This record gives sequence, C-alpha cells and structure tokens, in this order.
Amino acid sequence: MYPEAFEKLVEFFRQLPGVGAKTAERYAFSILETSSDMREEFAEVLKNIEHSIHYCHICHHLSDSDTCSICKDTTRDEGIICVVQSAKDVIAMEKTMEYKGRYHVLNGVISASKGVLPQDINLDSLVARVNENTKEIIVATNPTIDGETTALYISKLLENKSVVVTRLAHGLPMGGHLDYADQLTLIKAIEGRKRI
Amino acid sequence: MYPEAFEKLVEFFRQLPGVGAKTAERYAFSILETSSDMREEFAEVLKNIEHSIHYCHICHHLSDSDTCSICKDTTRDEGIICVVQSAKDVIAMEKTMEYKGRYHVLNGVISASKGVLPQDINLDSLVARVNENTKEIIVATNPTIDGETTALYISKLLENKSVVVTRLAHGLPMGGHLDYADQLTLIKAIEGRKRI
Repeated sequence: MYPEAFEKLVEFFRQLPGVGAKTAERYAFSILETSSDMREEFAEVLKNIEHSIHYCHICHHLSDSDTCSICKDTTRDEGIICVVQSAKDVIAMEKTMEYKGRYHVLNGVISASKGVLPQDINLDSLVARVNENTKEIIVATNPTIDGETTALYISKLLENKSVVVTRLAHGLPMGGHLDYADQLTLIKAIEGRKRI
Repeated sequence: MYPEAFEKLVEFFRQLPGVGAKTAERYAFSILETSSDMREEFAEVLKNIEHSIHYCHICHHLSDSDTCSICKDTTRDEGIICVVQSAKDVIAMEKTMEYKGRYHVLNGVISASKGVLPQDINLDSLVARVNENTKEIIVATNPTIDGETTALYISKLLENKSVVVTRLAHGLPMGGHLDYADQLTLIKAIEGRKRI
C-alpha cells in the first residue's frame, strides 16, 4: 500500500526491540521529515559500523580501536576487574566516577531458560586475564536469577586462584520507598543491614 | 564514553518520536547485532529516500511515483473525496476495503495551539480539485478539537460549491464497553442514535 521504500523503512524499524507495527510506522514517517543530510550521515554510519566499532580484545567493551580507552589507561588499577553483562553496564558504572579499576564485559549471562551456556559468554578470556596481580573480581551482573547463577559460576571458576570474588550489594534503591520495594529486595536489605 | 560511531547511532535514534536516551541505546545495541547486509540495505534506502518516495501531486499521499496508485485507478469513484490528516489514515481507510472513492491528504490540521494555519496544510489543492463532478467530500480528520475545527473550516471553504460535505460518524467503538467510553463519545453516541 505504501511505497516500497517506505515499507522497507517500516520493516527495518520493526526489527528493533519492542517496536510494533504502529511505532515502526511512526518512526518511518518521522524519517521522511528529517533533512537529507542527516539521513545520509546516518546511512554512512550504518555502512561503516564494522570498521568503526570494535570490541576491546582485553575486556570486550565497545571501542574505537582494538583496545578500549579504559584498558589503555595506565592510571586505572589493573588489580580490580568489574565483571558486567553488557557494555551499557560499563557506561553506568563509569557515570558514578567512583570506580577506578578495569572491566570485563561478558556479553550475556548463563541462562537455562534462554539456552546460554558458559562457553557462549566471555568467561574464558576472564579466567585468562586473572593473574597474580589481580586482587579482586567484582561481579556486577544483574540481580536476576541468571545474573546470580553467573556470579556463582564465576566464583567457582576462580576458586583455585588467589583472588577475592565479590558481588555488588543488594538492598533498597536510594530514594525508593520501603512499601514499594519487592519482598526479595527487602529480604536482601535486612540481611545486608549495617550498623549506623 | 562509547565509540563515536555508536554515539551517532544513539543520537540518530533519539530523534525518533518518543525515544529517550535508554531506548535509543537499546536500539543502537540491537543494530550492532544485525547482519551487515541488512544494515547496508537500510543505508541505501535512507540515502535514496528523496528519489524513491514521492508525494502524489493530486492527493499528497505517499507514492512510488508522481501520481499515486489510488489516483491512477480509474475504477475508483472520482466524485467522492475522503479528506484525511495523514497518509497513515489512507492506509487505515483502505484496510476496511469499504471505501472506493479518492483521498486528499491534508498533512496536518489547523491548530491554534501548535500554530498551524490553514495555508500550512493542503487545503488550496483540495479546493482546486473540487469541480462539477465532485459529489461528496467526506471529512475524516480525527475527532479532536483541531480535527473538528479543520472539518468546520473545510465545510465553510466549500460552502459555495455544489458539493455535499460530510463527516465520519462519532459514537461507541465496536467491541468497546459503555462504561469505558468517555463522556463526549457517549454524548455523540446518544446524539447519533439510530432506529433498529
């Protein structure tokens, strides 16, 4: 019904996560309203993704080159590695300005329900990275069943190495209300309570 | 923090309607997972939009060429013109398989709040299209304040022409529940009640 090129736009947008037919159509219409310069620039970006976006060969974080800026930064503590599920989580951690160690992006978590096995995520390279200089591995996978499973798996993997494996604290989110917290979070908050 | 090309992807997606930082990031990540063939095809579509998507010079509907397939179709009744706000509405009407007349896409509605004046939408070309063969103009703008205003404006514009201007019926949506209908819809449904 629509012109073929327009249908292709809609089709493309439908492949984005959580985008249905109506939303894809709305996006396609909004593309028609953008300037041709902007569209051309975006077309170039899309075409060159393979050449312009790399994964760091050490930590697997998104990078401009073969080694990411964090792994290149010699002022950061090589002895601490924060293990995260995805590159998004590195950005979230970096925004805190609190953490000054390195990262390791798993690119997923072990999941029975989704059929993700330990060999499907970046675990081998993590084990290979851990050496006598490594003091601590902070497992910062999400506090979900799969995230917890993966955290446990990592701690088992590194059992024989002289490294401390820690997990981010669970509890009430700051600014949250007690009566809105789910049961499990509340249980974790009670378990992890601290003297004031 | 992210590679530059990735940031550009995010930036692009943020310009889509209703897309915030988090969603744009999610979309950008999903692009990294698509095949390079698909990305290249999409890049081509984006680049060639000006040449591949046109607006029909008669009804302003989206089209592969200068005249859309509906305006080209001689089996359709030229005497009835359905006036809609956007190309999306043409598609919605066509899906009913009920309407066999022509269309006129306004590409907007007169809006005091958004500062859209009558000359900003395709009204002149509508008036120019109406001739002695035109029997009816069905105004199918949305049942909102702006849509109603535009409908009224169109009926005034065509006052001196020998054409009947009608409006789509308002009332309860099929399959809807009476107690979920808003007051205005219910009032319209009562006003428009019919003998069974």
